[in-house]
This record gives sequence, structure tokens and C-alpha cells, in this order.
Amino acid sequence: MTRTQDLMRRRARLLGEKSQLFYQEPVELVRGEGVWVYDAEGGKFLDAYNNVAHVGHCHPHVVEALCRQAAALNTHTRYLHTAILDYVERLTATFDDGLASAIMVCTGSEANDIALRMAQAASGGMGIIATNATYHGNTTAVSQLSTRMPPIGGHAAHVRLVNSPDSYRHAEDRVDGRRFAEEVRRAIASLDAEGIRLSGLILCPLLANEGFPTLPPGYFNEAIEAVREAGGLVIADEVQAGFGRCGSHFWGHQRAGFTPDIATLGKPMGNGHPVAGVVTTPKILATFRDAFRYFNTFGGNPVSCVVASAVLDVLEEEQLADNARSVGAAALEMMRPLAERYDCIGEVRGFGLFFGAEIVADRNTREAAPDLAEAIVNEMRQRGVLIGKTGIYGNVLKFRPPMPFSVDHARLATETLGQALGVVAK
Amino acid sequence: MTRTQDLMRRRARLLGEKSQLFYQEPVELVRGEGVWVYDAEGGKFLDAYNNVAHVGHCHPHVVEALCRQAAALNTHTRYLHTAILDYVERLTATFDDGLASAIMVCTGSEANDIALRMAQAASGGMGIIATNATYHGNTTAVSQLSTRMPPIGGHAAHVRLVNSPDSYRHAEDRVDGRRFAEEVRRAIASLDAEGIRLSGLILCPLLANEGFPTLPPGYFNEAIEAVREAGGLVIADEVQAGFGRCGSHFWGHQRAGFTPDIATLGKPMGNGHPVAGVVTTPKILATFRDAFRYFNTFGGNPVSCVVASAVLDVLEEEQLADNARSVGAAALEMMRPLAERYDCIGEVRGFGLFFGAEIVADRNTREAAPDLAEAIVNEMRQRGVLIGKTGIYGNVLKFRPPMPFSVDHARLATETLGQALGVVAK
Repeated sequence: MTRTQDLMRRRARLLGEKSQLFYQEPVELVRGEGVWVYDAEGGKFLDAYNNVAHVGHCHPHVVEALCRQAAALNTHTRYLHTAILDYVERLTATFDDGLASAIMVCTGSEANDIALRMAQAASGGMGIIATNATYHGNTTAVSQLSTRMPPIGGHAAHVRLVNSPDSYRHAEDRVDGRRFAEEVRRAIASLDAEGIRLSGLILCPLLANEGFPTLPPGYFNEAIEAVREAGGLVIADEVQAGFGRCGSHFWGHQRAGFTPDIATLGKPMGNGHPVAGVVTTPKILATFRDAFRYFNTFGGNPVSCVVASAVLDVLEEEQLADNARSVGAAALEMMRPLAERYDCIGEVRGFGLFFGAEIVADRNTREAAPDLAEAIVNEMRQRGVLIGKTGIYGNVLKFRPPMPFSVDHARLATETLGQALGVVAK
Repeated sequence: MTRTQDLMRRRARLLGEKSQLFYQEPVELVRGEGVWVYDAEGGKFLDAYNNVAHVGHCHPHVVEALCRQAAALNTHTRYLHTAILDYVERLTATFDDGLASAIMVCTGSEANDIALRMAQAASGGMGIIATNATYHGNTTAVSQLSTRMPPIGGHAAHVRLVNSPDSYRHAEDRVDGRRFAEEVRRAIASLDAEGIRLSGLILCPLLANEGFPTLPPGYFNEAIEAVREAGGLVIADEVQAGFGRCGSHFWGHQRAGFTPDIATLGKPMGNGHPVAGVVTTPKILATFRDAFRYFNTFGGNPVSCVVASAVLDVLEEEQLADNARSVGAAALEMMRPLAERYDCIGEVRGFGLFFGAEIVADRNTREAAPDLAEAIVNEMRQRGVLIGKTGIYGNVLKFRPPMPFSVDHARLATETLGQALGVVAK
């Protein structure tokens, strides 16, 4: 029995047979540094996937902040502490006017669970709209927005999942947001028909799980107008889109050209430390606090806040949003020639350090090829580059590396993609 | 404007007017060490309340483990890593046979949110029973178990909150669990009458929020039998009760004399680091994983697991469960004479390092005096000892210190209680 088989058996026994692992041949990681991760046998992988290690694996400035504060004090927010105040002040300064207050929690799921209740409190309604190819988290309430599995008690009556934009298959989505606005209006009418008042619309501004389609500026505005007319709020899930990832803007909603009522933050916020948050207006926050008393023991503890602040330091000092813009653009340029060589690449697209390619069985019909995408991902893993796949049909290669990803790293990643295509593509 | 006022204003602006603080005069903490915490002006407080810093504030062994692993690798569980396997193996070894697998998450709320769905998956039902004075967490689903605030969408039809045991006011609760079993059977019948199948009963085995009544061994067994006969599962919420807190046993359910189907863990698990978990049988875990795909990005990351394991090291090396037993017993002995001096102390009770006193307006009627309890808590804070209050009527003084609490610390705490009573009690 190999070491990997042994670990997988222990895992199945201790964590359940169906605990999820990446790759046909899973990777055992033991060390990370910058954009590199290392396995137990000294193997080295270029991490072109993980946005959790946002400013690079084990960034010394972040680790130092963590150790310093953990040695001084870690407690909850029922005592006064400057760390949470300094951080929330600094964080909200990156948002547009009005989004000036926050609740700190531990996971993006907790953040979205709160955001849904904020929208309920502010609107007085329960109805919520999301896309049919999204994922916003794992709590009971939030996982109602996922199409993956019907819950035991059945799908909640107040949820409407609308067809996602798909710029690759619907030319009109590359022009304007009318198709999506129509979907949203239909959902509002459908809730209305059942006497369910709208609370809001929740969206990743990049539509990351939907395959990050190429949408024109202002695409969501007509849909958002319909939501607001019906008394609903707009929640921007910035868990994947935020903290400079898209290069051109610090937040995904800024790039998409709208201001949400509520923004939720997660994964990259603490570079791996479990910290997340909900940013909103003081008025919405007050309404939420009146309607639902809320306290989170670990949320906003001094260690989490100091760590999250250190992540902002690094983003600024190393100008990582600028880096995401220039390297992301270079990566797309390096990847495009592959689309000329391989018919299975239907489209290359992305923005900043979030990019990838549609893998298709047929360029004319645009039929998705998720199995081929899976094979490419696995072949790249064998060749030392970690990526993933996503999208409505699970066929979109997903590159979402730590932010200090350089042009050289992008070259290695796209060259390796070329080699993998040479092996697995017809 | 004092520094405290300034911080409170910033806090109201950034975190909301109703963000909760302890004490009439809130404390700004800047440093913690063992059972001591320090404020910004050099003031020193005996921490007789916080179970998050379970093995003592900033325990060097735990901080060292945190720093070591954070500098090496922090990633998610879709890659193999030995830390989670070693920890879950070690953790489940402290449970009775059968409870041999786990899911790692970040907060007790996340743990209970999963536990409710595990019970749903294993039973096929939705109905859930809890006490009417409990608190199990802050997600949308879990906060349905709290009586504090009616949610916007109304109380869920599948929840039944039964009258809590109260050994101080109901003599029969000191004899056996018939009164509680009757409550639970009525709740099952009420769910049944509405066609709602039972999923389970969720309980803190110490009934910590209910005021930690003095119940005889086996108190819950008749109720549990009724739950199991109706096809339901038993969830032990060990967030307050676990990790040796009660002194006599490592887990609260072991002390109470029952084996749950699911145990949830939180606050003390990582000594402040956001880590929590759900322990159950491999069969229930498999059923849950089949019914609900679940993945938690931060849950079970190597840093969390190494930190949680370091907490177990300290509990063993410093024999802190034994300490909880002996110091807890000594503390009760020191506190009892106060009940002879002050009529407002209706009863002194507890187990291990979880103890306190019923504060009453009248010993004969046993009328609760929450305002007087509040005044005592505030007076003790002014005198440098941090405690809290809890219970069905919010009138029970709550001492729940870090586990390295010594007899000297207990003496200081009870002497300070005596002084506070001298000031505020009639």
C-alpha cells in the first residue's frame, strides 16, 4: 500500500468515504511558500488555483502578525479591543460611500447566512434570487441556494434560482443584461404569485462558479433595478471576486459597475486564517441587529483582525492588484494561441488573476466537455501545476492563483496547459 | 471623552449600536496570560468566565504550534494532510465506541448546523426538540432553537422548545427525569399531530445556558428513550460541557450518563483559534454525506488541527480535568458560606470548573433576581474579577474560568464575590 492509499483509507474511516479530494491522484501537501506548494516526497507544484493563500502561502508578514497577536491576546468582542475597530475602518474605506460598517465572522458561509437575514430584516420579505449554477456556502440556509442536492425537507419555497448568464453560448449576454433582467423579473413575479415578498438578489459579481462569463459593463444594472423596485436588496458575494483579484478594481462589484447593499467576504481575507465578514450600511446593520440578536464568539477576535489587516498591508506594499491586472492580461495572451491549436478550447477568458478556458466537444454546437476538462486538470497536476474547473457545465478550466503570481509563473502554467492538451486532447 | 467612550463610539459607528459588550463599564483588554487578562491602563483581571482560552490565555505550547504550522502550510482538506487525520484519531479516541468519525468546521454554530442536518438525514424527519432556555448558535437554522427573537419568517414549524429542567424550583428534577421526559413526549406528540417526523433532541449535557441544574445521574435517559423510540437522534452540544470542563469526565454526556449519536464541539477546542467539530458514527456521517454534499474551506485546515492537538497536549500534560474536579469542588466549599450570610443566594451549585449561584429576591418563593445578579457581576468587574450570568431567568452567576484555575484563584474569586455581595446585596 502506498502512502497515498494509506492516507486515503484513514481519511475514509475518520472523515467519511465521500469526503472530497482533488485529482485522480490526490496530492499530499506538507509545505507552502509564495505560489509554490510541496508534497511529502519533495515534489513541487505551482499553485494556480488557491485564492485562500491570497498574498502567497505562508507570507512572512502575515505569519508574523498572527504569532505576535496570538501570543498577546485572543478573545471575543464582548470586550473592547482596537484591532477590530482599526480593521473595519480600514476595510470599509475600500468600499463606496455608505458601506461603512461590518460584522466579522469566521467563514464566507457565515457571512452569507447573515447577509440573507439582513436582506430579510431590511425588506421585510423572505424571497431570494440566485443563479442556478452558484455556490454561496454550506449552512442550512445558504445551501438552499445551491442546486447540487435537494435538502431533506425539500427546496425552500422562498428561493428562486434563475438561469445564469452565459456569454459563450448566448451572444446577447455579450451585449447587455436584458436576458438576465428578464430572468430576474420572472423570478420576482413567481415569488409574488405565491405571496412571497422579495428580500433580494445574491450574486458573485464575477459569476465565478458560473464560469466567469465575459459580460459588458453595467450588465447587472437592469436586473438590480428590478430587484430594488420590488423592495429587494442586492448582496455581492465577494468571497472569490474581492481583495483585488480582478486587477482593475479592489472589489468585483466595482468592476461590474454596481454598488451592493451588502457585500460578503471570505476565503482570501485572512490568507488561510478563518476570518470572514459582512459589509453594509449602518442603517441595514442596525435593522439586522434589531431583528436578530447576533453574536459570534470567534468572529472579529484580535488575532483574526490583525491577520486580516496584515493581508491588506501586503496587498498594498506589493501592489498585488496591479500585479493581478498585468499578469492576468499576459496570461490570457499566452493562452490564446492554444485555442488556435486545439479545437477543444472554445474560448479563453478572464480578468486579473481569474482566468481560464471553455473546454468543448464541438466548437459549433459549443457542447461542453467536462470529462475532457477533468482530464486536462489531472494531467496538469501530474505535470506539477494545480488548477481546477468550474462553470455551469463543469467544463471551464479555472486558474485562480495566489496574487504574487508572476508572468513567469503564468508562462509555466500555460506551457504546462499546452503539454497537457498535447496528451489528452484529440 | 475617556478612551472607553471613544472606543464605544467608534464601535457603535463601525459595528452597530447594538453590538454587545459585557459590563456597565466595558473592559478594554490588551493582553492575556493564563487565567489573567490586562486592560489598556495596566489593570489586571482574574478571568473567571472565559472557556475559549480553555488551557489559559496565550498558552505558549498552543501559540508555538500555531506559529510553527502557519509558517509551514495552511490549506484546505481537498489535499491530503496528516494533521486532520492525526487529530480526528486522537479526538475520537476520547469518545465512547462508535463515535469514531468527524467533520471539522470553524465554529460551534457551524457544528450544530451540520448536526441538525445529520439528524435529518439519519431519521428522514425534520422535527427537532430543544429546551426553552438554550442557545446553540447563530446560523439561520440553529438560531431557530433560540427563544430570544422570533425570526422574520416566523418560528419554524419543525421546532419544539420544551420547558427546561430546573432543579432549584422543581424538587422532582432532583430525583429523576420523569418531568423532562414528559415534556419531550409531549413535544413528539405535538410534532406527530402536525405530521412532522422527529429528527432528534439537542441538548447541552450540563444544561449550561439553562443554569446548570443539579440533576441525578441518568436524568436524561427516559427522554432519550422516547426520542429513540420515535426514530430520533440525540445531539450532545459539548461546546460548553466538553474538554474536561466538568472535571469528572472528559465529555459532559459521559458525566450525564448517556451516549449521544452526534456530539458537537466548539469554543475551547482551539484555545481561541476558530476551530470546531462534529463527532458521530461512521454510519451517520455517511448518511449525511450522501444527503448533503458538504465542504468547509477553512474547516480542518492543518493550522487548526495542529492547534487543537496542542490543546489536547496541554490538557493531558497539565492534568487539567483533574484540576477542574478538585478546584471546582474547593470553589463550591468556599462559596457555600456566602449562602449562609446572604439571603439573596438561593443555591450554590456546579461541577468542575463550571459553578455559580442562584440569585433570588426571596428564598421562599425562589423568585429570580436578574437585576441583582447583574449588579453583582458588575461589582465584581470593578473589583477585578470577570464572571457572567446565565439561566432560565438570567439570574444565575456563572463562573467558567480557563482550566488552569487554581485553589488560590478560586479563593480570590469567592472572596471578591463576598465583597461584591457586601456592597450590592441587602
